[in-house]
Amino acid sequence: MSAPEKPTSEVAELAEGLVGGQRRALARAITLIESVKPSHRKDALELLSRVRQETGDNSKQALRIGLSGTPGVGKSTFIESFGMMLVNKGLRVAVLAVDPSSARSGGSILGDKTRMSLLSRAPNAFIRPSPSSNTLGGVARRTREAVTLCEAAGYDVILIETVGVGQSETMVAGVSDIFLLLMAPAGGDELQGVKRGIMEIADIIVVNKADGDLKQAATRTCADYAGALRLLRKRARDPDGFPKAMLASALEEEGIADVWEEIETLANWRKESGVWDKARASQAADWFQQEVEAGLLAQLTESETIRNLMQNYRSNVSDGTVSPSVAAENLLKALKTTG
Amino acid sequence: MSAPEKPTSEVAELAEGLVGGQRRALARAITLIESVKPSHRKDALELLSRVRQETGDNSKQALRIGLSGTPGVGKSTFIESFGMMLVNKGLRVAVLAVDPSSARSGGSILGDKTRMSLLSRAPNAFIRPSPSSNTLGGVARRTREAVTLCEAAGYDVILIETVGVGQSETMVAGVSDIFLLLMAPAGGDELQGVKRGIMEIADIIVVNKADGDLKQAATRTCADYAGALRLLRKRARDPDGFPKAMLASALEEEGIADVWEEIETLANWRKESGVWDKARASQAADWFQQEVEAGLLAQLTESETIRNLMQNYRSNVSDGTVSPSVAAENLLKALKTTG
Repeated sequence: MSAPEKPTSEVAELAEGLVGGQRRALARAITLIESVKPSHRKDALELLSRVRQETGDNSKQALRIGLSGTPGVGKSTFIESFGMMLVNKGLRVAVLAVDPSSARSGGSILGDKTRMSLLSRAPNAFIRPSPSSNTLGGVARRTREAVTLCEAAGYDVILIETVGVGQSETMVAGVSDIFLLLMAPAGGDELQGVKRGIMEIADIIVVNKADGDLKQAATRTCADYAGALRLLRKRARDPDGFPKAMLASALEEEGIADVWEEIETLANWRKESGVWDKARASQAADWFQQEVEAGLLAQLTESETIRNLMQNYRSNVSDGTVSPSVAAENLLKALKTTG
Repeated sequence: MSAPEKPTSEVAELAEGLVGGQRRALARAITLIESVKPSHRKDALELLSRVRQETGDNSKQALRIGLSGTPGVGKSTFIESFGMMLVNKGLRVAVLAVDPSSARSGGSILGDKTRMSLLSRAPNAFIRPSPSSNTLGGVARRTREAVTLCEAAGYDVILIETVGVGQSETMVAGVSDIFLLLMAPAGGDELQGVKRGIMEIADIIVVNKADGDLKQAATRTCADYAGALRLLRKRARDPDGFPKAMLASALEEEGIADVWEEIETLANWRKESGVWDKARASQAADWFQQEVEAGLLAQLTESETIRNLMQNYRSNVSDGTVSPSVAAENLLKALKTTG
């Protein structure tokens, strides 16, 4: 064991600054949880323990909103418009981007400053770009922990943004209270291209760009989505009318307040009905399970000895020298003795 | 460590009988790999090492045929008819059922004796019903190891049958050289119900029941599947004309020989082009990887201490007392010290 690079008191100080609502402390804390250094990981876990809130009362919890939509759908404009509306209501807003493959904003704050020029300058807003893809434990861990930190820092609303490549939507849904899907106006044919999976995750589908020449198409598209949502089995956990499809124009700032109103209605209903608390509890249990499994599987790649052993066995089973079952048994034994 | 229940010489004897082609030895060997007793597992791994063939020459390998189709499609009749044709050609045929949820044949040999009355009495055929669902390491491990044992016992063709519930087709495809999908005649609407995934796995779609009143519908259905297969991206690894859709009547024993001919054409092409060897090598590597991962994750459920610890942490993270990341870290530490 090497000595921690940062003395415990410094972690305590960071925790204090973060809970006190300092943006700089929050930024440093997220950098800490993204670090791949083992000593930083130790500090990160201590920090997470220290900022742990009492979550018994859900009225004190942040509203975590997952937001997905393909590039070009107007996500940045929507976040800018939606975020500024919340800030103007006196709410504190954090925006986390999770797309690890994004060249646009990957690691660069400048990108986000440009695409959300007003929000990035608002004192009550915090914007954090996508993590670099070699974040320790992957993007899922970073996102979960960053959300926890934003919540501990007292943000009222946390927007978790993804472009929806691969499994990222499911992951974001696993850390969100409400999930928004942003769509562009489209012809009827394109509607079918929406994956059923994401339709089932979405609480509210927002058809954006309901302005100018696209207004009519947006109205039709919205009706189509509303129909598609009705065909899906209604979720027992939701009140009448949800999931729902809505029209908005982020550019003209129209419909944005209505989206927020519906989010609040759904969130309050879930809080009062107990659905909210149950979902949070089950998300935490899933997170725990996934962290444990990821930690176990990480043993296969962490040490060079094991990586080489895996490689040798892989060659041997590929050329038929050793039975895969026997090779697996031997490797598991080796893991126990080296661990 | 308890003393092995079966002395090493007995495993050697079993291996000898199996390689010598004794059906009884093969049956006992499969029972051994299905056993949940740790001492049996030790013997099973020794057995697998002992019967390991030189696989350098693929002309000596069995032809492993995966066979899927929903209940009612005539799978038993097809296997009976197809298997008897092979036996009559002087080939030795093994049939493995993999469906763990099947109440019909689950663990009962009688079921398979009834549904394949001729084949089950043929001296050159070996039929093994579905394993019980609490087979050690799951149905995937049992299937892979049973296939290896049948191959070591000198069977020329191994039919691996699944009803295609959940992930079983992917698993069976992962242990097969050729994959057949058996379909019933259907209206055009039903065609769309076939999952894209299974269309992509299938090398040959056999539209069965092309007899009597259903003959016309079968012909139409076959043409529809042929069209659907053409729409899928052609696999670089296959010769022209594959994957293909064919008509057959297992009941009237029509088209069965043609199916076999196409299987042989495809198998020979793959053997000569190197695709066969590459696929076997990659299947073995996947098997190894999956066994290692399953073995690691099994640590979470094997010991009661760990199971209880998991349960406690799960409660703590659910009620918000502990951060999931911190709980996971602590559990992983506990696993290292108890392991």
